[in-house]
Amino acid sequence: MSKSVSPTATLLISCPDQRGLVAKIANFIYSNGGNIIHADQHTDFTAGLFLTRIEWQLEGFNLPREIIGAAFQAIAHPLQAQWQLHFSDAIPRIAIWVSKQDHCLNDLLWRQRAGELAAEIPLIVSNHPQLEAIAQQFNIDYHHLPIQADTKAAQEAKQIELLRQYKIDLVILAKYMQVLSADFVAQFPNIINIHHSFLPAFAGANPYQRAYERGVKIIGATAHYVTQDLDEGPIIEQDVVRVSHRDQVEDLVRKGKDLERVVLARAVRFHLQNRVLVYDNRTVVFG
Amino acid sequence: MSKSVSPTATLLISCPDQRGLVAKIANFIYSNGGNIIHADQHTDFTAGLFLTRIEWQLEGFNLPREIIGAAFQAIAHPLQAQWQLHFSDAIPRIAIWVSKQDHCLNDLLWRQRAGELAAEIPLIVSNHPQLEAIAQQFNIDYHHLPIQADTKAAQEAKQIELLRQYKIDLVILAKYMQVLSADFVAQFPNIINIHHSFLPAFAGANPYQRAYERGVKIIGATAHYVTQDLDEGPIIEQDVVRVSHRDQVEDLVRKGKDLERVVLARAVRFHLQNRVLVYDNRTVVFG
Amino acid sequence: MSKSVSPTATLLISCPDQRGLVAKIANFIYSNGGNIIHADQHTDFTAGLFLTRIEWQLEGFNLPREIIGAAFQAIAHPLQAQWQLHFSDAIPRIAIWVSKQDHCLNDLLWRQRAGELAAEIPLIVSNHPQLEAIAQQFNIDYHHLPIQADTKAAQEAKQIELLRQYKIDLVILAKYMQVLSADFVAQFPNIINIHHSFLPAFAGANPYQRAYERGVKIIGATAHYVTQDLDEGPIIEQDVVRVSHRDQVEDLVRKGKDLERVVLARAVRFHLQNRVLVYDNRTVVFG
Amino acid sequence: MSKSVSPTATLLISCPDQRGLVAKIANFIYSNGGNIIHADQHTDFTAGLFLTRIEWQLEGFNLPREIIGAAFQAIAHPLQAQWQLHFSDAIPRIAIWVSKQDHCLNDLLWRQRAGELAAEIPLIVSNHPQLEAIAQQFNIDYHHLPIQADTKAAQEAKQIELLRQYKIDLVILAKYMQVLSADFVAQFPNIINIHHSFLPAFAGANPYQRAYERGVKIIGATAHYVTQDLDEGPIIEQDVVRVSHRDQVEDLVRKGKDLERVVLARAVRFHLQNRVLVYDNRTVVFG
Repeated sequence: MSKSVSPTATLLISCPDQRGLVAKIANFIYSNGGNIIHADQHTDFTAGLFLTRIEWQLEGFNLPREIIGAAFQAIAHPLQAQWQLHFSDAIPRIAIWVSKQDHCLNDLLWRQRAGELAAEIPLIVSNHPQLEAIAQQFNIDYHHLPIQADTKAAQEAKQIELLRQYKIDLVILAKYMQVLSADFVAQFPNIINIHHSFLPAFAGANPYQRAYERGVKIIGATAHYVTQDLDEGPIIEQDVVRVSHRDQVEDLVRKGKDLERVVLARAVRFHLQNRVLVYDNRTVVFG
Repeated sequence: MSKSVSPTATLLISCPDQRGLVAKIANFIYSNGGNIIHADQHTDFTAGLFLTRIEWQLEGFNLPREIIGAAFQAIAHPLQAQWQLHFSDAIPRIAIWVSKQDHCLNDLLWRQRAGELAAEIPLIVSNHPQLEAIAQQFNIDYHHLPIQADTKAAQEAKQIELLRQYKIDLVILAKYMQVLSADFVAQFPNIINIHHSFLPAFAGANPYQRAYERGVKIIGATAHYVTQDLDEGPIIEQDVVRVSHRDQVEDLVRKGKDLERVVLARAVRFHLQNRVLVYDNRTVVFG
Repeated sequence: MSKSVSPTATLLISCPDQRGLVAKIANFIYSNGGNIIHADQHTDFTAGLFLTRIEWQLEGFNLPREIIGAAFQAIAHPLQAQWQLHFSDAIPRIAIWVSKQDHCLNDLLWRQRAGELAAEIPLIVSNHPQLEAIAQQFNIDYHHLPIQADTKAAQEAKQIELLRQYKIDLVILAKYMQVLSADFVAQFPNIINIHHSFLPAFAGANPYQRAYERGVKIIGATAHYVTQDLDEGPIIEQDVVRVSHRDQVEDLVRKGKDLERVVLARAVRFHLQNRVLVYDNRTVVFG
Repeated sequence: MSKSVSPTATLLISCPDQRGLVAKIANFIYSNGGNIIHADQHTDFTAGLFLTRIEWQLEGFNLPREIIGAAFQAIAHPLQAQWQLHFSDAIPRIAIWVSKQDHCLNDLLWRQRAGELAAEIPLIVSNHPQLEAIAQQFNIDYHHLPIQADTKAAQEAKQIELLRQYKIDLVILAKYMQVLSADFVAQFPNIINIHHSFLPAFAGANPYQRAYERGVKIIGATAHYVTQDLDEGPIIEQDVVRVSHRDQVEDLVRKGKDLERVVLARAVRFHLQNRVLVYDNRTVVFG
């Protein structure tokens, strides 16, 4: 964890592996007066890819913010690099999608208020009305958009409109028990979901019931980016808890809630710290 | 864990739930002078089943061993109970099936010698010759029975013959990379297998490769009784270990070996202590 | 976990180990028409103690509630047994002591509202005013009793008075950063505390700072009953989380909060389910 | 984990934090034709220290091995950097100190033979004769040097002489139940110990007995570098396992053995991969 009073810039870079990448990137920052406070690199020899995260203090950096991207592109282009540039004082805006369960929603709102998540949360969307009181308590707009098979396309269009209106950067599916359409995901691809199983075990519906029936001794939860294939997106974080023959389905649900809360919160925090790089349906989570 | 200098008897019982079961079973032991040193009970309300493990000291028990079963059957019959009776000084005989990997074999033999597994291990069977030196070092007979598609039935017949000849009570598949036929399992159903994944995730072949490709953040191992459906038998024990993007397939294999060793050893120990009761393709592992 | 529509009675019993205990206790229940739904027993051979938890349905039980204790005492007395009798529909009343940190308080209140904790929470006491808004939101009385060295005795007297007035059964110290006097504990001994370390490591003040300085790779949290010796009471539950060199003290604090919440909640739940039996400054937590 | 067919060089560097460190170090390697395959950096803002591990392929590197150190010193000196240089094909030589317990010894030897530990193990020293057969089985010299209070200094002098004679780089205390003198540690400071508790809990003698008496719900093991203060050296790795009231001291010992094996093996592997950097009695373990 880097500690820094001044704002920082972070580059997330992936490119074909080749000699001199660390030097070229570090020189770009150093020659412009930047002080690197975090650098982590991973080489995937199987994929032939170099992946890195590099963060430096903007104080004393000679390039104005609006020029950094263009300047770095001159280096990135010949390296065939894909890259993202983030500034630590640009606070992302999050929308949370929920159904009826409140544990993940409450947990995220509590963490945001406690300063654990560097983000604003101006919008909650639900297909049910139950959690509106929580939204009110935190002074967040709550939009109730019920979904039936025949209204789904129209309601998703409204959801997309809300995302634009609220200038949302990230959607969190905090136990939103609906499947988003491929079209929605194509229009807004920055989505993190929490699935209540240790994927790929028990993908799909009723994972706790099925875990109980299979007689597993450990259950899990998985936070992942949402892709068009349900429960198949890149995994950001997972964790598990032990269960026994004494645990009925309702006990699995209860124990699972604690997992879901903490696994989702960790994944969101990694994302907000720009520590997650996706390639080949996998993630690098930089330390 | 019960500590006892004198030998003990253990009853594992399952029967339809009804009033008075604990009293009837405890009275049977107490009225014959037995001192109960462990009793644990579980009621599965969904299945309507009462399941219990009860262990008592034979010293001072009025019934001779050879009569205990018949005497208890008089109580069990009207309760429609299924039960097993075990004596702690009847040392089970184990055979270990291996292929080429030595880590689980070495670990089991080391534990047996260290007194962690109350069993004899007179027989090792393999479809490969590589591990014979380990067998020799521990003074255990090693039978090399190569398996091809067209020789499988004949070789399994020889295996079954060896099980009879060596009076084997339990077979452990310690990374035996062959599937046993339904016929084999029907003839000898006491088999524990270690699968190198967190079942039901990555059932079947190459679980580490597939775990790597899916990009999971945690891998696992599962010890289960073998049934005719591959990797579908009742789970006895599971455990997991965290992995990261830095771990290649070979690292998953290495980390997994440590899991496989300890998960298999725990499951075998539970079994040998008569703490495992199977019903509905699930296990109760009494504490 | 026992599932039961009708109310149940639970006996927690410890007595010198001797022949026939299970039978005598089970007969007491069976002969009065009770249906046992949970029975678990532990024998501590070192201490020569038999410890058990036995739970049965009151529906169909022939003894009226107010007589059960006296009737059982006739059995318990010759066995030199210590015992507690609890009824599942007698809802305990909890008071929560806090200082300024809200994570454990919020978590307990959320769980109580979600039905995870079978208790009422009518009272919150704090030496600081900050958390009053949370109390209001949950409609719970909040008493602000500031503590200085010279006012401590007087304020504790007021606290004891509040415990009487609100008919409190259990006090939870949910990050109450004050040490209770021996006199307080003597007057009201039913107290659960959460300590933010893996006891006995880092007992006392500033455990996260000291864990950081020692360079540990794992941190923990411990829920225990409060005794007159600070941080020395019987441990109910512990859990841990991995940390690395990248984690500063503030990261340990943040990760620790997640541990504290879940460890405290589990311990309180075990207590409320009458699953915890204390002897020799140790606990048995029945499964 | 980096995968490389050609040998690599690794620099472990710590120096006061300042601008341009990553660039200067990366340039040194790149300008001499090196291909970096692993680079990880940590800044300890509290200590004001920059710490890094950088590994590159020697194939194609322009500087001969024997000059790399001197060449890098020209860069390191003005930065006030402390550094170590390691070559992946220089196989370290390990000596193992044991007493009577064989589990860690067996485990290390098995891992070395399985290729998990890139080291030679030519020497085992013990104050007891019991484990000589294991040494013979692996063709390793075994020196039995009994220790009494009045012979300790003389025997340690012999041990030091053996370390010189066998050209040992690292000593592993694999359950060596003796305390090394400050003088020994001063003469040979490269020592890894496994302590059978979750340090700093239960430092010193009989940790399992004391863990049992304290009634902890989790036990641990700790691998650390040995310093003159017993059990106070920099921690490399720790892990834990859950225990219950059913576990007697002998069960803690048994469960602890599994922990000790795996924790010690991980620490030794980290060390052999030159991933551990010590400062301020702490370790950075690079990913």
